[in-house]
Amino acid sequence: MAVGETRFPKMPVIEGLRLGTTMAGIKKPGRRDLVVIEIPEGARVSGAFTRNAFCAAPVTVAREHLAACEARGEGARYLVINTGNANAGTGEVGLRDARATCAELARLAGVEEQSVLPFSTGVIGETLPMDRLLAGLPGAVQALDDGAGAWQAAGEGILTTDTRAKGASVTLALGEETVTLNGIAKGSGMIRPDMATMLAFVATDAAIEQPLLDQLLREAVDRSFNCITVDSDTSTNDACMLIATGHGSPVVEGEALERFREGLLQVMTELAQAVVRDGEGATKFVTLQVDGAHSRREALDVAFTVAHSPLVKTALYASDANWGRILAAVGRAPVEDFDVNRVTIDLGEVRLVENGGRAPGYTEEAGSAVMAREEIEIRISLGRGDQGATVWTSDLSHDYVTINADYRS
Amino acid sequence: MAVGETRFPKMPVIEGLRLGTTMAGIKKPGRRDLVVIEIPEGARVSGAFTRNAFCAAPVTVAREHLAACEARGEGARYLVINTGNANAGTGEVGLRDARATCAELARLAGVEEQSVLPFSTGVIGETLPMDRLLAGLPGAVQALDDGAGAWQAAGEGILTTDTRAKGASVTLALGEETVTLNGIAKGSGMIRPDMATMLAFVATDAAIEQPLLDQLLREAVDRSFNCITVDSDTSTNDACMLIATGHGSPVVEGEALERFREGLLQVMTELAQAVVRDGEGATKFVTLQVDGAHSRREALDVAFTVAHSPLVKTALYASDANWGRILAAVGRAPVEDFDVNRVTIDLGEVRLVENGGRAPGYTEEAGSAVMAREEIEIRISLGRGDQGATVWTSDLSHDYVTINADYRS
Repeated sequence: MAVGETRFPKMPVIEGLRLGTTMAGIKKPGRRDLVVIEIPEGARVSGAFTRNAFCAAPVTVAREHLAACEARGEGARYLVINTGNANAGTGEVGLRDARATCAELARLAGVEEQSVLPFSTGVIGETLPMDRLLAGLPGAVQALDDGAGAWQAAGEGILTTDTRAKGASVTLALGEETVTLNGIAKGSGMIRPDMATMLAFVATDAAIEQPLLDQLLREAVDRSFNCITVDSDTSTNDACMLIATGHGSPVVEGEALERFREGLLQVMTELAQAVVRDGEGATKFVTLQVDGAHSRREALDVAFTVAHSPLVKTALYASDANWGRILAAVGRAPVEDFDVNRVTIDLGEVRLVENGGRAPGYTEEAGSAVMAREEIEIRISLGRGDQGATVWTSDLSHDYVTINADYRS
Repeated sequence: MAVGETRFPKMPVIEGLRLGTTMAGIKKPGRRDLVVIEIPEGARVSGAFTRNAFCAAPVTVAREHLAACEARGEGARYLVINTGNANAGTGEVGLRDARATCAELARLAGVEEQSVLPFSTGVIGETLPMDRLLAGLPGAVQALDDGAGAWQAAGEGILTTDTRAKGASVTLALGEETVTLNGIAKGSGMIRPDMATMLAFVATDAAIEQPLLDQLLREAVDRSFNCITVDSDTSTNDACMLIATGHGSPVVEGEALERFREGLLQVMTELAQAVVRDGEGATKFVTLQVDGAHSRREALDVAFTVAHSPLVKTALYASDANWGRILAAVGRAPVEDFDVNRVTIDLGEVRLVENGGRAPGYTEEAGSAVMAREEIEIRISLGRGDQGATVWTSDLSHDYVTINADYRS
């Protein structure tokens, strides 16, 4: 199940950046499961990774290799991504396997091992089937291509329980030149990113220095992937990479920087929202907008408390305007000195709550009409400050339980 | 659905304490939904209430009246509890209705309005059907009785989505005399108590001064009701009352106090566990034991992070020893400077995780054998301190979604 449409766009070429996808039979045969992304020399690469203490072996190795590249003043040259197996909770064996994957691709491509960053997604706790993975690498390298078909194949090659590929692209006019941003992402369950979503790869032809690239990535992740939740579970493998090939216009400051910042946020938000729309079992796409908070942190706390409430999520699934559950979730959010009489809650255009209780004009008919929609907006105003935040989430359906009670079988 | 057996015990008489239950037709006809508890003069009454900022009108009024009684150096004389309607999110009307309920029972019983404490449980956001509630009060008063049948009827009269009444009783030998503790509780969904469960009423014939009674209640609540979760949602109506009639032995200090403390914790823990066993859609009863933490708070944070994980809960439902999900949940717990290489995770007698990954001797067969049980113990050792905590929870099943997607229809 999934909410609404997510069209995979026809991605423009980003010069020098190529993607190769193959079927390595990592979990099951006949499925795209191994992707190699080739990055031109001179590019800058920035990464944001999960804060889960049990981070996966590829996250550890990707961080190490990225740091080594940066120390040499270079960008990474290759990303290698497998699906079907997260290589997480695999201890020393997992680290050795992640490094061996990098080493083999480095050998094939004629680069340093540390210029290759590994990414994995899938079941936690099983070791990688290294024979099949290594045997698949030459095919992925042979498939390297910069066309729209290669982007689409890579978008498909990183999926797990996702029902559809997720891509976003914008082309920005910066003065007389244009800059392109292409991104792909995967994610459907174990989605409560705490740095980034499961996996997202965004590339641009803009020329951006490393410190600015790092800052742009951090800002955009905080407003996009870090503002979504499907099931409150932060993954061991979250990673979001931003690649700037440098073949196009420079982005340094002023209006060009602002435009680029907006474009990047747009691509990342589209990808993040696509993850929620394709959330496991999702039948609703929900925007939670909190304002009137003392701080953005406080607004996020309220939004995530509501977004994680199983009772709110099942009411959304049932299209039941059970606003008492929203009110109860807001009331248990970690907010100091909370005066609930100042809180208003709106469901779409319908006022649900004011003065600590049901809004006088509220009718079940009006509430139910909004809840019946596939895309629902809940606005919560705390009436105590001028900060806000927006979070996107999905509902909790029978299919969510079915998917997660059957995932490994 | 519910896990295991919960036998409602044959409660001994607590002299002077009587319970009356009737069918007032508050939500539907032919169902016990209104309970009055009569407390003898001279008793001491202590209460613990929800910390949800949107607390229900009866919670506000019960707190006020309890404070007024304490200011006069008296205990409350009557508790009145309705099910079918939580009188929460009902603003000024709700407060007026809760006070009117107290006033009418006070008039019938010939006591002060402030000697009556109101409690409600059920749907949030609808006003109480005061005509039916007030019309039901005389019947409840007429039914007042101190026998085991009256305890059982009261246990049934406070239920909502619960599938069975929950009671616990112990009789303690204190020197040459005995002291009795009887308790009833309700709760099945919206269970993540933050002071107490939905509703629990515990009475003893012991004679205990107010400050000690308050302290004993607080301690016992922290180790029982505050250590359970079904669905992470803290209710607007949580309340736990402890009544000491004073007709029996005094409990002041020394061995008698220790015995009483243990007995109280036993009754409250049995009731709290009974709530989890009857958790909405529950098919498993899960004990999460965390040790090796820097503080009890840290141990509780880890335990609740695992207990709230939808992915862990669906794996429990599926009897799938998907230990990677437990590991991922532990890894995202809010623990500073977390060295995961020191963490061990055991499922029953089977070691799942050590040294940051799967334990060497682990086999799927061994894990699956434990997961197939109805009662499951997960032990997590953080290896960084000597503090611990135990939390009880249930799984996330199709029935949970069904119950909560259909509750109001």
